[in-house]
Amino acid sequence: MENLMATRLSLNGVFPPIPTPFDEQGDLALEALTANLAHWNEYDLSGYVVLGSNGEGVYLTTKEKIEVWETVRRAVPDEKLVIAGTGSESTRETIALSRLAAGAGADAVLVLTPHYYGGQMSPEALRRHFEAVAEQVPVPVMIYNMPRFTHIDLSAETIVEIGRHPNVVGLKDSGGNVGKLAEIVRATEGHLQVLAGSASFFFPALAVGAVGGVMALANIAPQALLDLYDRHGRGKWREGAVLQQRLVPVNTAVTARFGVPGLKAALDMLGYYGGPVRSPLRALDDAELRALKGILERDGIL
Amino acid sequence: MENLMATRLSLNGVFPPIPTPFDEQGDLALEALTANLAHWNEYDLSGYVVLGSNGEGVYLTTKEKIEVWETVRRAVPDEKLVIAGTGSESTRETIALSRLAAGAGADAVLVLTPHYYGGQMSPEALRRHFEAVAEQVPVPVMIYNMPRFTHIDLSAETIVEIGRHPNVVGLKDSGGNVGKLAEIVRATEGHLQVLAGSASFFFPALAVGAVGGVMALANIAPQALLDLYDRHGRGKWREGAVLQQRLVPVNTAVTARFGVPGLKAALDMLGYYGGPVRSPLRALDDAELRALKGILERDGIL
Amino acid sequence: MENLMATRLSLNGVFPPIPTPFDEQGDLALEALTANLAHWNEYDLSGYVVLGSNGEGVYLTTKEKIEVWETVRRAVPDEKLVIAGTGSESTRETIALSRLAAGAGADAVLVLTPHYYGGQMSPEALRRHFEAVAEQVPVPVMIYNMPRFTHIDLSAETIVEIGRHPNVVGLKDSGGNVGKLAEIVRATEGHLQVLAGSASFFFPALAVGAVGGVMALANIAPQALLDLYDRHGRGKWREGAVLQQRLVPVNTAVTARFGVPGLKAALDMLGYYGGPVRSPLRALDDAELRALKGILERDGIL
Amino acid sequence: MENLMATRLSLNGVFPPIPTPFDEQGDLALEALTANLAHWNEYDLSGYVVLGSNGEGVYLTTKEKIEVWETVRRAVPDEKLVIAGTGSESTRETIALSRLAAGAGADAVLVLTPHYYGGQMSPEALRRHFEAVAEQVPVPVMIYNMPRFTHIDLSAETIVEIGRHPNVVGLKDSGGNVGKLAEIVRATEGHLQVLAGSASFFFPALAVGAVGGVMALANIAPQALLDLYDRHGRGKWREGAVLQQRLVPVNTAVTARFGVPGLKAALDMLGYYGGPVRSPLRALDDAELRALKGILERDGIL
Repeated sequence: MENLMATRLSLNGVFPPIPTPFDEQGDLALEALTANLAHWNEYDLSGYVVLGSNGEGVYLTTKEKIEVWETVRRAVPDEKLVIAGTGSESTRETIALSRLAAGAGADAVLVLTPHYYGGQMSPEALRRHFEAVAEQVPVPVMIYNMPRFTHIDLSAETIVEIGRHPNVVGLKDSGGNVGKLAEIVRATEGHLQVLAGSASFFFPALAVGAVGGVMALANIAPQALLDLYDRHGRGKWREGAVLQQRLVPVNTAVTARFGVPGLKAALDMLGYYGGPVRSPLRALDDAELRALKGILERDGIL
Repeated sequence: MENLMATRLSLNGVFPPIPTPFDEQGDLALEALTANLAHWNEYDLSGYVVLGSNGEGVYLTTKEKIEVWETVRRAVPDEKLVIAGTGSESTRETIALSRLAAGAGADAVLVLTPHYYGGQMSPEALRRHFEAVAEQVPVPVMIYNMPRFTHIDLSAETIVEIGRHPNVVGLKDSGGNVGKLAEIVRATEGHLQVLAGSASFFFPALAVGAVGGVMALANIAPQALLDLYDRHGRGKWREGAVLQQRLVPVNTAVTARFGVPGLKAALDMLGYYGGPVRSPLRALDDAELRALKGILERDGIL
Repeated sequence: MENLMATRLSLNGVFPPIPTPFDEQGDLALEALTANLAHWNEYDLSGYVVLGSNGEGVYLTTKEKIEVWETVRRAVPDEKLVIAGTGSESTRETIALSRLAAGAGADAVLVLTPHYYGGQMSPEALRRHFEAVAEQVPVPVMIYNMPRFTHIDLSAETIVEIGRHPNVVGLKDSGGNVGKLAEIVRATEGHLQVLAGSASFFFPALAVGAVGGVMALANIAPQALLDLYDRHGRGKWREGAVLQQRLVPVNTAVTARFGVPGLKAALDMLGYYGGPVRSPLRALDDAELRALKGILERDGIL
Repeated sequence: MENLMATRLSLNGVFPPIPTPFDEQGDLALEALTANLAHWNEYDLSGYVVLGSNGEGVYLTTKEKIEVWETVRRAVPDEKLVIAGTGSESTRETIALSRLAAGAGADAVLVLTPHYYGGQMSPEALRRHFEAVAEQVPVPVMIYNMPRFTHIDLSAETIVEIGRHPNVVGLKDSGGNVGKLAEIVRATEGHLQVLAGSASFFFPALAVGAVGGVMALANIAPQALLDLYDRHGRGKWREGAVLQQRLVPVNTAVTARFGVPGLKAALDMLGYYGGPVRSPLRALDDAELRALKGILERDGIL
């Protein structure tokens, strides 16, 4: 495995966790996916997370997942990363799926904490899970900490321990606790590349040492987040902070408030293909659509 | 669909939610499963729940699930029910899996609340999910409310609403709030058959109108729970209450405290096949095994 | 202290946790309190809990608390118990207040778990708190476990340990986990008298060994709960279970749904003095009042 | 009231929420308090929060609170602010206590969200509470949002609404969600002065528009936080971010990990008076003391 990691994967920059397009029957709409990617490819995005939470990954069959990863890989130039969300409840399924993702061309896998038997998911059990995956998967592994959905919040200490494995290269943390990110950056001395899991704290995360972000908002406002990233990188932190301020309301709308249905509706409004969500998720109703439109217009995104 | 429900399915009695045996490589051990069932069939159990939480259902592939259901169906006499756990995150997957279960011989399906996008799982979204499943599945549907694992606790009101669908026949509630069970029994006037989801409140649940129980403890102490059920039925409630008291410590051990690994270890001690759990679950360590053995001995189960 | 406990205090029966009447200015309405008690005294209630959660205890000054306890003691015959809610965040304040309550005539004190520094309230810290109080207070102590308000749920194990102190005589548990109550009854062999903290699980709690209940519903439907208690005592458990069923909807209304404002509104409807709550609690609005009235009428209480 | 607010109170800078010294009997040690303040006064701190969570405010009687505020006021020069923690469960008690604090010389009051009846503390109830307090208290009011202890997390929307009242001048938010702070800063356009409630996210908070911080760590490392604040103010953000990194481990130790007992122990090690905590809080044991000492040494604080 050593040679696979000879060239370290850089996770710097902005990554949209892309939604998965479905047609009106709820089947995969792969041409729409390709069209969306052609549009996103025009931006200086570092890559894409495919089948994370925003991709409704938990709603797809294994066969569908492979089709999505293959479609994305074909539609994305080699220099942009394809990061596949492969976290499953069991270690063996996570490994199997990660290998399939690698076979479909993924550059790395993003592994969510297993969480169904929450009371049994001790730090020790989770550490062994991630290490087993890191050991048996032919591409680098990123830890995905998402307390809002999993009801498990990996501690800084556990993340640092898992991050010692040479094939664990990054962390997407959606918890929003920037102090914790700072602690992780410090303790891993940069070995573990930390990415903000939401635009709501992108600039603060960069300020304490994160290298980038995987942010739903990057699907609909990629340039704004690239600008923010750029200002931070060039030391223009005050300008970065101002940009951060501007993005907060729209980000809240397409994440906590309206979720994946809101993200897809926003894409529809912006000329991308958003399309329907799979049930039990439900489309926004008219009042919600109007509210979303108002927010997008007020913030100059629409 | 009407004719399918002409004869109403009775859920009275005691149902063990059986664990799924794996061999040392972590593959299905179907012969062990058949052997376990031969043993359980000797008791007056009303049937089995197959691939619920105690069955590590979240760790099996679709192909494995079908094999398990088919194996159980073959090993179980027709007069005992096979209830298949088929709850998945998406409505379409839940329907697909439920149809496969019915095809494999299941008499009913037990449908867990979808929960990954918890904030979006409004009572309305969940109601539509269950109704869509009930509509499109050729066997009766049971609601599975399991707040400890899903972090969603269906309200009595929502359960009563879902229970109005003619193809929704039962509820397994593991929350332990007996007052809520009483409320549901009263409001549905018995249309919705309520089952205790844990032996810790089996007698109290029967006392307020539950018709039976799906209880991990029924795997290792079937006769004790059948006795309790019998005492209640024959109006010998004081005796039932005494039996309930006796079962509490061992039940705590094989559920909340040691979980599925504890249940499998107890089966091994009792001459059934328990075997290993799948990772990231972990086997009990020596101290835990000793503690478990002590509890089983003290309570006369071993 | 030994002689104080020579005659063991019996906690059998039904105890309303009475609300504290305020006038329109929000000051104590002690005459209304006396009048309410004259009415309740006509029932075969075993006593009263004064300044528990339903008594808005957290909203009263120390001086007001003493006035309330003294007023209640004067208005209640000696053979009925006055149990004073004295739990405070600090051990010394709890002791001081418990002594004042004893001086005002309380027969026992009900001590809520301290909870502000929740993360530091280890089982060990809580055990020492209760033991210090039990040691230094001249009347018997009851443990008050109220997870909904304190976000701390004492485990059966910790309760059993605390219950070993000779001056700890009872437990009011509002958590609703009847299996846990059964475990405590069994482990303490009756030394610790267990009381249901809500009518929603009164009958099931009695069925597993509780000796009585401290239930908001006892303020507005004392006879129904006394009947239920009586049926259980005389072995007419089926009748008891039927009564339990009947009480569920109204109990939900005056506890979880409408809280203390609902309880006070119901008292007003029934000819007692309910009166206003203290801010930040807010009175029911007109729609809520109508809903509450409907429920009371439907259940034959009004 | 208008003239009172003619000169707007500035909350810029660093504020330690000071602990309350007790002697070995658990009584107030006011001379030790005066001595500690003489030491802290040497730093360029903007003022002190007195009887917040770190001050064990919930463990003091009203009489003790007044003594503490008066002692602090005498020991602190006029140009430094004294901010009194006065939040109580009832609106009337909060107002009464706030007036007493103002009478004792407090420049502002910090009002914690009432939380005991959590389910009834709707945004509307909380808004009215804060507005009633702001209306009837003769000094400016700060909102104190502390989800870890209150289990209530005021939303950005509710905070913005409360912040419209002219006498509500600030927010101490301990939740750590920097994106939310950014949203509040933006929506209130600076009318509501936002302060970080923990050093763990001080720099990120400043970066999105906070004006200062109320941070336990400021008790034991005031100069480090003043340096960080200074770097941010002079546009040397990279240096500020580096300082932030350095402070994370020690901050974790004296807040989440060891709490108030840890803060007091650290003060003892540093030559201040820390002294005992009140029960049920418990002093650190020897192993914890060693761990704390190690952390303080490693980070150059000791």
